[in-house]
Amino acid sequence: MSNKHLFLRALDGDKVERPPVWMMRQAGRYLPDFMKLRAKYDFFTRCQTPELATEITVMPVNQIGVDAAILFSDILVVPQAMGVNVEMKPNVGPWIEKPIQSMADVANLTVPNVEETLQYVFDAIKMTKQELNDKVPLIGFAGAPWTILCYMVQGQGSKTFDKAKAFCFTQPKAAHLLLQKITDTTIAYLKKKVEYGVDAVQIFDSWGGLLSPADYQTFSFNYIQQIIDALKNETKVITFGKGTWYAFETISISGTHAMGVDWTVTPKLARYLTQHRVVLQGNFDPVRLLSPIPDIKKMVKEMIDGFGKDKYIANLGHGILPNIPVDNAKAFVDAVKNYTE
Amino acid sequence: MSNKHLFLRALDGDKVERPPVWMMRQAGRYLPDFMKLRAKYDFFTRCQTPELATEITVMPVNQIGVDAAILFSDILVVPQAMGVNVEMKPNVGPWIEKPIQSMADVANLTVPNVEETLQYVFDAIKMTKQELNDKVPLIGFAGAPWTILCYMVQGQGSKTFDKAKAFCFTQPKAAHLLLQKITDTTIAYLKKKVEYGVDAVQIFDSWGGLLSPADYQTFSFNYIQQIIDALKNETKVITFGKGTWYAFETISISGTHAMGVDWTVTPKLARYLTQHRVVLQGNFDPVRLLSPIPDIKKMVKEMIDGFGKDKYIANLGHGILPNIPVDNAKAFVDAVKNYTE
Repeated sequence: MSNKHLFLRALDGDKVERPPVWMMRQAGRYLPDFMKLRAKYDFFTRCQTPELATEITVMPVNQIGVDAAILFSDILVVPQAMGVNVEMKPNVGPWIEKPIQSMADVANLTVPNVEETLQYVFDAIKMTKQELNDKVPLIGFAGAPWTILCYMVQGQGSKTFDKAKAFCFTQPKAAHLLLQKITDTTIAYLKKKVEYGVDAVQIFDSWGGLLSPADYQTFSFNYIQQIIDALKNETKVITFGKGTWYAFETISISGTHAMGVDWTVTPKLARYLTQHRVVLQGNFDPVRLLSPIPDIKKMVKEMIDGFGKDKYIANLGHGILPNIPVDNAKAFVDAVKNYTE
Repeated sequence: MSNKHLFLRALDGDKVERPPVWMMRQAGRYLPDFMKLRAKYDFFTRCQTPELATEITVMPVNQIGVDAAILFSDILVVPQAMGVNVEMKPNVGPWIEKPIQSMADVANLTVPNVEETLQYVFDAIKMTKQELNDKVPLIGFAGAPWTILCYMVQGQGSKTFDKAKAFCFTQPKAAHLLLQKITDTTIAYLKKKVEYGVDAVQIFDSWGGLLSPADYQTFSFNYIQQIIDALKNETKVITFGKGTWYAFETISISGTHAMGVDWTVTPKLARYLTQHRVVLQGNFDPVRLLSPIPDIKKMVKEMIDGFGKDKYIANLGHGILPNIPVDNAKAFVDAVKNYTE
């Protein structure tokens, strides 16, 4: 007898008793057991060692009770696979010593054979699927090409990613070639993840909202669309852009199965702009997890009422913050699980 | 004969030949003559010395040809006047050694007599008005109470201002008392600016867009509304929030004369949401000033066509960046001046 997981039923648009729930960045950061591993192994060792990635991925399933697992990894393994040296510097975050600056730099980048360069991710998927033993589905992810370009050109995190934007505006040919190389790598990477068993993929466009609507279409969404087109018949696709409210209609007719929503868009407006064409996912303000637990419960109820329980996946509006008490994260998840109309 | 300035005619909604133009943060940063002063005097010395503030304020009028001057100052002079020690650290930006953390901290803050604490600003206004000699109008400004709270609680710049938000969510009474004290100070401060001769005031809510629509209303807009109510009959008020597109309708019925728009909202959508109730100001992506000059000219024309030339003030969608070539800034201003339908 097929016992389809709640998360996949919601993604298919089936009627559900209550929405499924998971949290972006749920694997790590705020979990004490994660912090112990973090003290022992550096960031990319954790990503590149299937045993560690598996352990971290499964943690929130067992400890918080989320309805889906998302593979512990990082969007920047893609530029690494393309031959860029990405470091994770303490108190700085991602750091690239020689950022992309010119067409010559872009020309030097390879579209790698993902089985040669990212096999550790696929091994982690295989191991995680065994470990999960079909308890919950597993999500794989990749960064949107624009967001990857942001780091590759800026070389580190930024409020405005002005260098990355200036690169696109002053060297559009180089920018488009770079975006296409990232896109080609990402498609091969996500297809292989599906082959190894992920049940859905999410595309994270953390910096899409830094662009004007016209520039977003040109430098971000056109490449996301290629990824959706290449993946939508092989798995479920969730597209999430932080701050890309202005593209909600576009995203909703793209063929993506689900769309992430951040907390600046009310659930009702998100539904209005997307007209039930896609499953919506979101949109609790991550900082609101610091609110007293009774407030969290009340706001979760309001959020689900706003989206409606069907065609909806409860989540945060961006990644969980490192300083969230585990009890508060659990209260969020439990509030979704205890939802009644 | 009254020869009303183009900027004030646009603010009044009069029909104009072409829109007026100025740039947020136009006084400083990208101007070589400013950089010379910057090498000699530290940040707050520049703010606190009327001769320097005047020289910097007038610079872009003479060198770039903008249609309005905005007094060189900083939004953080308000917390300074309230007794908080604000420093400007090289490569860090604003820095507060002892950020606000509790109700006791808030209770210790004074609502200062602005003539005692901020007289240097009023002296700078008087001197600047003389120096401008009615060539262009002078804008005064203040930060929105929420944005000021962000710095007072976080203690420095931040991508998420998570500590500031958490303060509001976990200690709402202290947060509201703090916001009210900032608001009371700001109202007295702006009224005095008007008394000393500024022709309009702009409220900057740089971090409004980090809040959900409901939290924005509670922790930001309710206080902006008090400022608008207190000032709107004494001068022209321009309200600008970065990322607060979701509140455009609210802002447009608040009594503010003009509303700033950032580059994530198309001119047509901004008009649709505000229905010609207010003058709109914006919204060129500051990074787009790095585009080749022919691109800048083309995009300025499209921007003005989108907003329409009346009830409109051409500007950037946020502050000009330090790395903008003067020629590009000038090309932006000239493109507005050369606008024809």
